[in-house]
Amino acid sequence: MQVNKHIQVTMDKIQHFPVLCWKTSKKVGAEDPRRIIHSLKVGLSLTLVSLLYLIEPLFKRLGSNATWAVMTVVVVLEFTAGATLCKGLNRGLGTLLAGSLAFFIEGVANRSGRVFRACFIGAAVFLIGAAATYMRFFPKIKKNYDYGVVIFLLTFNLITVSSYRVDNVLKIAHDRLYTIAIGCGVCLLMSLLIFPNWSGEELHNSTVLKLEGLAKSIEGCVNEYFFDTEIDENKESCSGDQIYKGYKAVLDSKSIDESLALQASWEPRHSSHCYRIPWQQYVKLGGVLRHFGYTVVALHGCLQTEIQTPRSVRILFKDPCTRVAREVSKALIELANSIRNRRHCSPEILSDHLHEALQDLNKAIKSQPRLFLGSNRNKASNMLALAAAEAGQKRCRSGGSLSSVKTDSSALMEWKTKRASEQSREAERKVLRPQLSKIAITSLEFSEALPFAAFASLLVETVAKLDNVIDEVEELGRIACFKEFINGDDHEEQHITVKCEKPNINVSQNQLSSVGGAE
Amino acid sequence: MQVNKHIQVTMDKIQHFPVLCWKTSKKVGAEDPRRIIHSLKVGLSLTLVSLLYLIEPLFKRLGSNATWAVMTVVVVLEFTAGATLCKGLNRGLGTLLAGSLAFFIEGVANRSGRVFRACFIGAAVFLIGAAATYMRFFPKIKKNYDYGVVIFLLTFNLITVSSYRVDNVLKIAHDRLYTIAIGCGVCLLMSLLIFPNWSGEELHNSTVLKLEGLAKSIEGCVNEYFFDTEIDENKESCSGDQIYKGYKAVLDSKSIDESLALQASWEPRHSSHCYRIPWQQYVKLGGVLRHFGYTVVALHGCLQTEIQTPRSVRILFKDPCTRVAREVSKALIELANSIRNRRHCSPEILSDHLHEALQDLNKAIKSQPRLFLGSNRNKASNMLALAAAEAGQKRCRSGGSLSSVKTDSSALMEWKTKRASEQSREAERKVLRPQLSKIAITSLEFSEALPFAAFASLLVETVAKLDNVIDEVEELGRIACFKEFINGDDHEEQHITVKCEKPNINVSQNQLSSVGGAE
Repeated sequence: MQVNKHIQVTMDKIQHFPVLCWKTSKKVGAEDPRRIIHSLKVGLSLTLVSLLYLIEPLFKRLGSNATWAVMTVVVVLEFTAGATLCKGLNRGLGTLLAGSLAFFIEGVANRSGRVFRACFIGAAVFLIGAAATYMRFFPKIKKNYDYGVVIFLLTFNLITVSSYRVDNVLKIAHDRLYTIAIGCGVCLLMSLLIFPNWSGEELHNSTVLKLEGLAKSIEGCVNEYFFDTEIDENKESCSGDQIYKGYKAVLDSKSIDESLALQASWEPRHSSHCYRIPWQQYVKLGGVLRHFGYTVVALHGCLQTEIQTPRSVRILFKDPCTRVAREVSKALIELANSIRNRRHCSPEILSDHLHEALQDLNKAIKSQPRLFLGSNRNKASNMLALAAAEAGQKRCRSGGSLSSVKTDSSALMEWKTKRASEQSREAERKVLRPQLSKIAITSLEFSEALPFAAFASLLVETVAKLDNVIDEVEELGRIACFKEFINGDDHEEQHITVKCEKPNINVSQNQLSSVGGAE
Repeated sequence: MQVNKHIQVTMDKIQHFPVLCWKTSKKVGAEDPRRIIHSLKVGLSLTLVSLLYLIEPLFKRLGSNATWAVMTVVVVLEFTAGATLCKGLNRGLGTLLAGSLAFFIEGVANRSGRVFRACFIGAAVFLIGAAATYMRFFPKIKKNYDYGVVIFLLTFNLITVSSYRVDNVLKIAHDRLYTIAIGCGVCLLMSLLIFPNWSGEELHNSTVLKLEGLAKSIEGCVNEYFFDTEIDENKESCSGDQIYKGYKAVLDSKSIDESLALQASWEPRHSSHCYRIPWQQYVKLGGVLRHFGYTVVALHGCLQTEIQTPRSVRILFKDPCTRVAREVSKALIELANSIRNRRHCSPEILSDHLHEALQDLNKAIKSQPRLFLGSNRNKASNMLALAAAEAGQKRCRSGGSLSSVKTDSSALMEWKTKRASEQSREAERKVLRPQLSKIAITSLEFSEALPFAAFASLLVETVAKLDNVIDEVEELGRIACFKEFINGDDHEEQHITVKCEKPNINVSQNQLSSVGGAE
């Protein structure tokens, strides 16, 4: 029976495999239609270089060296123009250096006897191999020229070793260089001229999206903090899922940003209005945004802790907090629009509204001194009962609305459920559990305004960090020669902002490229 | 003069280049001596496969196909055994699949006329090229088999295209497979048997180091928060630099963890006491640690904000806060030791001390109701003056002790200093500045206990998140069959802990591998 069932399951999987493939294909294409174009471009390039073999006169001229053109296309042609150029130049540089060194060594080796020559070549291969590999650990070389060193090593070894058996190495090298050049030419043509994708454009758009995502997260956090039991039409779109999506892209962006900036620095300046586009400044801005993001994560953490300030208390501060969040979010959106339209940001980016909202929050906190006391035992215990009840409710709901927030620990949750039915190691666990819960109880006895104080303080912290973000964006605008801010632009921006307010941040990355390009 | 100076500077740079190279080489080697061994291994492997060319009988047997062995070694041999296996198997699988498909297509094409055959091959190259490239965008394939697909494409095109001109393709393919197998054999020998580096071991050690780093960061944060103006012998070792170093490794660990786990899953089980080592659980633990790390970042942020609770207030809570931090840090160190020694963690990991410390903190907060009031205008303004004075002092010092904390925004600082002398765009900036400072003033008017409340709340939050970390480590222990906790082990652990308390977290990664391996 067991075996039969197993076979049944496997058969089912095989039957569903084509459907799954088709669905994945459609999804991958829908997420970014440029992927389809890129695939067709690769297919076309490969067919073009194959013609070197298939067409008689060309084959007679180049012979079997045409394989090197095929190899070059497969290895060099990448998704964006910058990546292709970066790889192509690395390859070219590596090949040239390796060729020169190999011929130098051959020249030295040629003057001696056959046995000594073999020893000399062997020693050279060992030394150069070890030295080049060691160099790959140097941080600067690892970052910029890792691929170039691999190609250097490959070419050097191939030439040096071949030269021992073949006499006309120079002729071979010459022919190969020829076909490699053809391959590189096809790659450059395809990546630079036919529907090019620019790494710089990608970095630019992802920066805009990160700013917008953070704006959405902050608003979402505050909305959820104050609205969580009310039935609100905004709730669906501002759930924990949305909050998480907003800052997720920011947190793990370091390596992506750095490689995009590196590739972009190889790209020709396709926008005419600035001499030098400061890609490194985008990376720096990304770093500041990441630090901003950590505060947002901590803010989001306030929604998820076990101990919560009762709703009756929170509601007192709802208005100023919501306004502060709205103003911060508005400033971030303005920064995003400023980068998207490549213009300086509005001088009124930090409006008096933010100032007023902060003062109101201050007033609200000062007007409720008793809440921050926590020594009113009787009142406190009532509130704690309320808080405990709410925490219980919240935990029931958390499976639904917050499901994707807990991606990282979802398996843990699963395991916890599973563990309930698994009694074998219970004895051991009992030693640990009571103490864990003891801590939870201890936490609950804290002054209940403490969690709200943390929330408010973190909110003020985002305002403080907004300063850094504005500084970096201004600096970007200064280096990249953004145009001056004109008040009339605002109308057009509003339009674009509405367009980009779509919830799905991953998908819209490519939808935006046309907006960015149209500018 | 200008030109002369420029030449002088360039000459200086060239003169110092060898010294710089030498220094970098020494540093790279000192950081991880395994790098030197790896470089020598690559050199040796290359020399070995070169012998296929250099030794007469071998060359007669294999001919110029020996180049494929060289190519395989250059491309496949990686730093860790797991990475080498992963690449080698990808390469093997890709080559085999491509070969089969190419022969199938050749079989179909052979039955028709020469022109049709050329068209058929061209179409096949286009279709397979486009399809394979498109498949590289599938998330699962991108993660696990990206390199395999590239090799598939390469081999398929080379064979298909060659088959049009050459008749005995099967013979060529056979010979090449032979030499590729030799290359793979040399790579496997080198990576698995001679001074092997295991990705799994690396992941294991980095997890231990991350736990220890977080422990150090938390203690450092609390120490700096309460000790910052006293002259303390601990200060030097617990400065902001150390705090940043402690959590930095955790924040950006996602991609490194994932690739190490992927590589480790290919590695043979070199430790005998467990059937299956749960590398994915390490990734999950890494995720939980990252979330723990975000709280630590927020805690560190409390030290760096402009508005601070005056020291006279903070000092009241110094003792309980320090104790909570010490206990959390102790628990993290215990978890680190548990993973390092592959044993379950002590049942007393959450000691009563933590419980007591939390309660003391609670009591301390409740016993100072006035501080959380903030409505006592007279007292408050005194404290604000104090806070402002301190903030001024702190800013003066921040250039020194906190220098590396601000790496991300250090260029911004530089720019700010530069800007002071640059008056041209001052007019434009004046519109913005007054508002920024207005916000700073507004923040200062807040109830001054708020920043401390945030600090305390975040500290309690770390205790709550500690629960998740303990759960994940326990789960890891359960799946990986860690040995039971024995009280006698403690002595040995203490010893190791002291050894690892060295400040430099990056350097010690490899120093620990021997400790981990000795277990």
